[in-house]
Amino acid sequence: MTPKGYRFAAVEAAIKKPGRKDLGLIFSDSPAAAAAVFTTNKVKAAPVLLSAERISKGTAQALVVNSGNANACTGVQGMSDARETTLLLAEYLGIDAELIQVSSTGVIGVPMPMERLKSALPRLAAECGKASLDDLALAIMTTDTFPKTAVRTGTIKGVNYTIAGIAKGAGMIMPNMATMLSFVLTDAALDANWIKRCLSSAVDRSFNIITVDGDTSTNDTCLLMANGAAGTDLICEDTPEAIQFADMLDQVLLELAKQIVKDGEGATKFVEIRITGAVSDADARRAAMAVSNSCLVKTAFFGQDANWGRIFAAVGYSGAELDPDALSLWFDDICMASGGIFAGGDAEALGTLVLRNKEFTVTVDLGVGKGQATVYTSDISHEYVSINADYRT
Amino acid sequence: MTPKGYRFAAVEAAIKKPGRKDLGLIFSDSPAAAAAVFTTNKVKAAPVLLSAERISKGTAQALVVNSGNANACTGVQGMSDARETTLLLAEYLGIDAELIQVSSTGVIGVPMPMERLKSALPRLAAECGKASLDDLALAIMTTDTFPKTAVRTGTIKGVNYTIAGIAKGAGMIMPNMATMLSFVLTDAALDANWIKRCLSSAVDRSFNIITVDGDTSTNDTCLLMANGAAGTDLICEDTPEAIQFADMLDQVLLELAKQIVKDGEGATKFVEIRITGAVSDADARRAAMAVSNSCLVKTAFFGQDANWGRIFAAVGYSGAELDPDALSLWFDDICMASGGIFAGGDAEALGTLVLRNKEFTVTVDLGVGKGQATVYTSDISHEYVSINADYRT
Repeated sequence: MTPKGYRFAAVEAAIKKPGRKDLGLIFSDSPAAAAAVFTTNKVKAAPVLLSAERISKGTAQALVVNSGNANACTGVQGMSDARETTLLLAEYLGIDAELIQVSSTGVIGVPMPMERLKSALPRLAAECGKASLDDLALAIMTTDTFPKTAVRTGTIKGVNYTIAGIAKGAGMIMPNMATMLSFVLTDAALDANWIKRCLSSAVDRSFNIITVDGDTSTNDTCLLMANGAAGTDLICEDTPEAIQFADMLDQVLLELAKQIVKDGEGATKFVEIRITGAVSDADARRAAMAVSNSCLVKTAFFGQDANWGRIFAAVGYSGAELDPDALSLWFDDICMASGGIFAGGDAEALGTLVLRNKEFTVTVDLGVGKGQATVYTSDISHEYVSINADYRT
Repeated sequence: MTPKGYRFAAVEAAIKKPGRKDLGLIFSDSPAAAAAVFTTNKVKAAPVLLSAERISKGTAQALVVNSGNANACTGVQGMSDARETTLLLAEYLGIDAELIQVSSTGVIGVPMPMERLKSALPRLAAECGKASLDDLALAIMTTDTFPKTAVRTGTIKGVNYTIAGIAKGAGMIMPNMATMLSFVLTDAALDANWIKRCLSSAVDRSFNIITVDGDTSTNDTCLLMANGAAGTDLICEDTPEAIQFADMLDQVLLELAKQIVKDGEGATKFVEIRITGAVSDADARRAAMAVSNSCLVKTAFFGQDANWGRIFAAVGYSGAELDPDALSLWFDDICMASGGIFAGGDAEALGTLVLRNKEFTVTVDLGVGKGQATVYTSDISHEYVSINADYRT
């Protein structure tokens, strides 16, 4: 179920350890309407700076992506490396370099191994069409343990179209956004005036409500390309077609976002943090984020310890308005606390059973309004420490 | 070197596991000028609420403190338990209950075992004077591995006085403030109009610039009592004596704060994060906090991995103003990066050597101004995860 009019390639450029594909290509047969959301980190990787500049024109035809090296904190050399990569590839593909987006993920502060990269580019162009989108999902993995893909299909006036996305994540995952790359392709035709807003709001409801370790990376990118190869009418804002498309895009991105959390570095738990009863949705989100990023809460999840007090402490320092004497908390449907205190009875035993599951929901009601928010998070395990203590070795 | 006019007691009340003293008393022979700084968490433990109300009058004569139970998220019962504890103790000590401060630390959300606590209070009062301040430092420990004490002495017009402090910390340590209790006693005489400001600014330069895990607790308290038993003149604001006293108080609190970081749960490193070249001191502090709380940075410290790129990423998302192309970074005096990129040469090897030390300094220059700040932090180790996964079991 790959959208029409796209071709893919994935090769080994020896940027990562040998034996793993680390250089990928997405190529659209024709220039596509395109938009991207990039990291809010003030330290932006060279590929982010270059891609942001190019995509402001609203069109892209290809993406080159490597894993193993982030090309971040690499200064003038990094910019020139990113640019040269696209210039060479443009020649091999026979398109304008301005239409090529570039993404990188991996270690920060190490210059790109350009000789190896350059020697792999002709192969990458030559193999265009020989790989699948799934192969590409594999090639962009760093500490990910499984490739992340999601697909939805829709119909406009009898014409079927597809939205397919891939993502990589694992560490440094925090809204706005994550060391997260996500590339979403559709063969629907999207109005260039709407595509950017459509993507931004989908990102806000997916990648921006997940957190693994609270670190926001230098390289985060979510790219959407719409080449119209399915032959749909142009989808314009505020139409029933736009609503359908936006809903499906939301679904694709949320599914990818959840996969990223499930594959959080060393994660053993997938936890939905739901805040209700806040004075506003924004306040609810603030509280949900504090809980989701609390080291003490996340280690308690890992220990399967029904330590609801740490969760109250986290909402307490989140900055969100709350009534300490009206706080309630549930693990799935087990009420652990209400009126700010322990619910008593079997709550401890039943709550502990919930925490033994791989997936569960924590709901906290702040008792002061109708605002609500959901954030997805993982636990912090020994494995998380091991992965990140030894990342570069 | 204990300040004059104070007596101490420490007994077993069976709140913690058997065999450890968990209930302590500080008693001043006469009512003392007193001030306290409490947690900013909106979920405040009962003892914090009660103590804050009482100390607003600027006087205290005794403190009762227990470890093993935080008496937080315990509602009306918790308030009544805290009050009853002081009422009973007041009777045994023969003083007004309004002069008794109360502090608790330990697990959240579990009612105080009042029967055991109440039966221990007569012993606590009877043993007043039988313990030392060091004994008390032991009795307030939770996951601490060593007791924390600091002492300084000064002289005013030939009269010697002493400032002695104890603290407990270890987990949930984050400015504003930490699951941190600190009790500081002096036999100098302090002006009641100044004592609160004097303490607040000392806390801001000590306990508020340390972080272990970024969690702010429900129970943080720093109490200062000044009973004048040394016979000094009254120390008033804006005098040379006040400057001397404030400087020594700063030293006591900073020494305690550093001990808390060194004893951070599972900590193997003590790291000074120095930010320079910021647009303001506040911005520098923001950047220093982001670095100090980054899970990725802290696990890299644990792994002794000179991964300076993660530190640049952390200052990048801190919200502080910076020039990505002017960032510099040092591990002790080894320049790892300048002009936003790797410094080259032997930096990697030399930087790695620095990170093998138990203590080192990380300096980041943001390249945009003259603001600076220092924060003390620890690493995140496997041991941190183990301690906090199994805290209640």
